[in-house]
Amino acid sequence: MVKHTERPAFPEAASMPVRRRGRPPNPGRREDTRALLVRCGTELCTERGFQITGIDEVLKRAGVPKGSFYHFFRSKHEFGEAVIENYRQYYEKRLDRFLKDTSMPPLERLDAFINEAQLRFALSNFRRGCLVGNLGQELGGMNDNFRAQLAAVLNDWEARVAACLQEAIERGDLPASHDAAMLASLFWNGWQGAVWRAKLEQSAAPIRSFGAFFFRSIGRKEMPAEYAEQPAA
Amino acid sequence: MVKHTERPAFPEAASMPVRRRGRPPNPGRREDTRALLVRCGTELCTERGFQITGIDEVLKRAGVPKGSFYHFFRSKHEFGEAVIENYRQYYEKRLDRFLKDTSMPPLERLDAFINEAQLRFALSNFRRGCLVGNLGQELGGMNDNFRAQLAAVLNDWEARVAACLQEAIERGDLPASHDAAMLASLFWNGWQGAVWRAKLEQSAAPIRSFGAFFFRSIGRKEMPAEYAEQPAA
Repeated sequence: MVKHTERPAFPEAASMPVRRRGRPPNPGRREDTRALLVRCGTELCTERGFQITGIDEVLKRAGVPKGSFYHFFRSKHEFGEAVIENYRQYYEKRLDRFLKDTSMPPLERLDAFINEAQLRFALSNFRRGCLVGNLGQELGGMNDNFRAQLAAVLNDWEARVAACLQEAIERGDLPASHDAAMLASLFWNGWQGAVWRAKLEQSAAPIRSFGAFFFRSIGRKEMPAEYAEQPAA
Repeated sequence: MVKHTERPAFPEAASMPVRRRGRPPNPGRREDTRALLVRCGTELCTERGFQITGIDEVLKRAGVPKGSFYHFFRSKHEFGEAVIENYRQYYEKRLDRFLKDTSMPPLERLDAFINEAQLRFALSNFRRGCLVGNLGQELGGMNDNFRAQLAAVLNDWEARVAACLQEAIERGDLPASHDAAMLASLFWNGWQGAVWRAKLEQSAAPIRSFGAFFFRSIGRKEMPAEYAEQPAA
């Protein structure tokens, strides 16, 4: 049912060891093999979900011999935790690349993040979306350990966006009455809903509409051209 | 991993045939048995997802003998379509109960829907959420048939909310400059994100915050007390 594309899901993947079908990886490169398993797990869980992704499938995609999984992880649950942690690190680097780029005013950094995310999502044919969004939906109601881990990731992301919005408030680009932490929470929840709809519509329009609605709603003083009135979906 | 509660997921379930372990249902009640399978499938898919839900599990929960599944459905895919269609009908009745209740002004109908949804979600210990939200996240990127079916459900829900918002615009409860269809789309996407976060936080607060943000953002003239400033998550 799943269509795999040839593109790597995550640019970091490019620096990781190339998959070699049927040939076991160099046993001296334990960390590389673990990272490869986590990367393949991240791709599979983002595309299909955690529960349905089998350990055998991860090993097959990684080209790592069967039976070596428990050399690296005590359980599938521990593997899931490693996948989420890996995505957290990857995504926080990506967020920081935009949100800490002081060559731009703070709200333009957020615009740049939103624009790049639309582009990436379109490049995956709107198939993948956000691992944290997907697993939060799948596991949030089922497993309290995963739920708490995913909620903590959201809190980290939220703190980053809140810092950026706080800068905007202090510069006078947003009304001084705003609570940056509350806006950041509304941002991420609205973001996840927009990404969810973009997947259903196979279109980035819901993400653009959300950005426009969010920034207009919070009284942004200068609205960039990319948020001009667009159809909502 | 899944905790089952004793509460029925859907009140309509109360009028359906009682599950009888190990005893085949009366063969004359073909439609009842089909409805029972769909109801059990709806519960399992809402709690755990579609892919991971096995046909055997559905039959076991329904107390229907193995082997009878293909008497009712040609494939698991056809069963999935029936589950989504059943949820659409159930949810549209629920929406209409609120949104077509002309004893209240239109925006209060939407408040009543939002309040009741928070209550229901809390009663499920924030485990279930919305079948369309869950399956959209799980299957939206994987299967174009399910994707199109789920997108069509969203469009139906959107039309209902748009009609209610249009009434509010015509009464002067919202600014006349609004496009009700676009607002309805923003409502549902934001809603799905808020429900997603409520599941992660095990709290209805993200839903209340979303309601408050949405109504303030669209210039609602009278804000009810339940949207008074609350922590965002």
